[in-house]
Amino acid sequence: MAKGYAIKDPKNWTNFQVVDFELKTPEDDDVDIEIECCGVCGSDVHTISGGWGEFAVPFVIPGHEIVGKVTKVGKNVTEFKVGDRAGVGAQVGSCGTCAPCKSDNENYCVGDGKKGMVDTYNAKYADGSIAQGGYSTAIRAHQQFVFAIPEGLKSEDAAPMLCGGLTVYSPLLRNGAGTTAKRVAIVGIGGLGHFGVLFAHAMGAEVIAISHSPRKKEDALKMGASQFISTGEDPKWAENFARENPIDLIINTASSNAVDIPTLLSTLSVHGKLITVGMPEEALKPMKVQSFAGTGAFFGSSHIGSKKEAIQMLKLAAEKNIKPWTEVMPMSDCSKAVKRVEENDVKYRFVLTKTL
Amino acid sequence: MAKGYAIKDPKNWTNFQVVDFELKTPEDDDVDIEIECCGVCGSDVHTISGGWGEFAVPFVIPGHEIVGKVTKVGKNVTEFKVGDRAGVGAQVGSCGTCAPCKSDNENYCVGDGKKGMVDTYNAKYADGSIAQGGYSTAIRAHQQFVFAIPEGLKSEDAAPMLCGGLTVYSPLLRNGAGTTAKRVAIVGIGGLGHFGVLFAHAMGAEVIAISHSPRKKEDALKMGASQFISTGEDPKWAENFARENPIDLIINTASSNAVDIPTLLSTLSVHGKLITVGMPEEALKPMKVQSFAGTGAFFGSSHIGSKKEAIQMLKLAAEKNIKPWTEVMPMSDCSKAVKRVEENDVKYRFVLTKTL
Repeated sequence: MAKGYAIKDPKNWTNFQVVDFELKTPEDDDVDIEIECCGVCGSDVHTISGGWGEFAVPFVIPGHEIVGKVTKVGKNVTEFKVGDRAGVGAQVGSCGTCAPCKSDNENYCVGDGKKGMVDTYNAKYADGSIAQGGYSTAIRAHQQFVFAIPEGLKSEDAAPMLCGGLTVYSPLLRNGAGTTAKRVAIVGIGGLGHFGVLFAHAMGAEVIAISHSPRKKEDALKMGASQFISTGEDPKWAENFARENPIDLIINTASSNAVDIPTLLSTLSVHGKLITVGMPEEALKPMKVQSFAGTGAFFGSSHIGSKKEAIQMLKLAAEKNIKPWTEVMPMSDCSKAVKRVEENDVKYRFVLTKTL
Repeated sequence: MAKGYAIKDPKNWTNFQVVDFELKTPEDDDVDIEIECCGVCGSDVHTISGGWGEFAVPFVIPGHEIVGKVTKVGKNVTEFKVGDRAGVGAQVGSCGTCAPCKSDNENYCVGDGKKGMVDTYNAKYADGSIAQGGYSTAIRAHQQFVFAIPEGLKSEDAAPMLCGGLTVYSPLLRNGAGTTAKRVAIVGIGGLGHFGVLFAHAMGAEVIAISHSPRKKEDALKMGASQFISTGEDPKWAENFARENPIDLIINTASSNAVDIPTLLSTLSVHGKLITVGMPEEALKPMKVQSFAGTGAFFGSSHIGSKKEAIQMLKLAAEKNIKPWTEVMPMSDCSKAVKRVEENDVKYRFVLTKTL
């Protein structure tokens, strides 16, 4: 039994109530973690407010950027022992046997017909157990979805990397940031975007930060961007980009559909890629195929990252001393935190610390 | 001076009139070709009917699948001599100096600020010369856009490859058909689609033909498809595809926006690609980012192909004896031909032979 901050009705999505809840049915591959802190992700707001759809479970305890101490391990677990520091991100289950699962793509698990992808909260396991998130005292998860936290990283810094960081790190890595993709643009300098700038810079790319307003210019340059574009101030910014300064890879972190995708596509180098990792509640504005033909562009999305990538990201962060820009507050203030995330009033990630 | 079949008003887009016209200003890199035959492309219909926009020139002579005999060469031309067989596709100009031009991507030329991409018809050169197409007696083009036709290929078979063939060959090649992309689907079995099946099969891929009706099943299997899906007969066809038979690469050749893109994306292997080479006049139906996240899919388009790829394609066709399925008719019947293309009444490409 654990305790957590729960939302029972998406209409009252800031009205957290402390509830008791059961952890998943214990299995031999499971790791139990006593939660020390948990980041606040835009997904938390989309989910508890019903923006991504109705609740799949009776109440939702959000939070999928979790760090804490291991309190128990199943008999198949060799990587962790009681007392270790460990984290959990946005996924806690997969089938383990499909082609993606067998190739370090468990974040793209297609299921085996019985078991499949399980999100960290607002989700059910195949046996009916309910997955609840990290605005709580404890989580139990299969070892595949538990990541060791390197010594050099503080828990409050590691936590927001486990969804926000990984969600940008994985597509940066898979699309060659710093290697084949020399020039990388990050659209939207919020929770995800600030990680985008930090990691793309650390991976050796030249980073262009693109934001609708000039407000975040100074911050973006401090994070490692070498150029800042305020699209609102210069509506013609993209005009000669493809000829003069083509971008190889764009990571679009905006969580609304207001971003002008065709203009972004027009700035790409031949066969450049635009990966949208924000998940707007609305559809994208209608696009013409012609917008893609000029540069042979690709538009895609991405789903968090694999355990292998999470470990690699945490190692990079520890080695290069990459610190997210966070505001730390007690978990009992989670209502304030989600409200401020919804209002975009955060620089750049909240981390909630244990209060229950 | 040359003669050609011209449309003067998109409202009367089947009313061809024989006109005299000037070839481009001669330059030292130019090759003059006396036209023997010309394929009829869907682009011809989109252009002359105004579906892609207003005319850029006073009258349009369409046709960009041209084969004929060289009658004159500029002094910089070493690849061709008078009497050689040669062809021209959908592009006749580029700047020659931008990064794409310098890397065998002249089909993605971004221009140098003065010169840039010139389409084969309905286009102007930087000096004001007007580019007219192959429903005519002659064409003059820069040697970069003139392709030698291998001996083993008949002119009527080579012609439709120079736009229709190349438009699918290039994205098949660039996205690993038969190598990294083992399973390739071709959506729409028309002019482009039939080349898609022929080439993807010749490149060693397992080919799935996808069509809305069962009408073309027998033909598609003869062309080299190993599986045929009639989406209209089996609306649930895609349901277990990603788990059981994921597709690595989809080339969508449909020229309308009726194709269900999210369903196609759901059948892809992890980071699989959907390349749309049909250019619908309308926008795509609105899509959600979520449709891309499940498989980490990429949606893109492509613009014809490079000279290097055209030569490689023609060599492959000659070596493997790949023959397009064509209906050959006299060029004076061009009005009938464009009408039937608009009605989808062609199996699978018209080729017009010299009548003027």
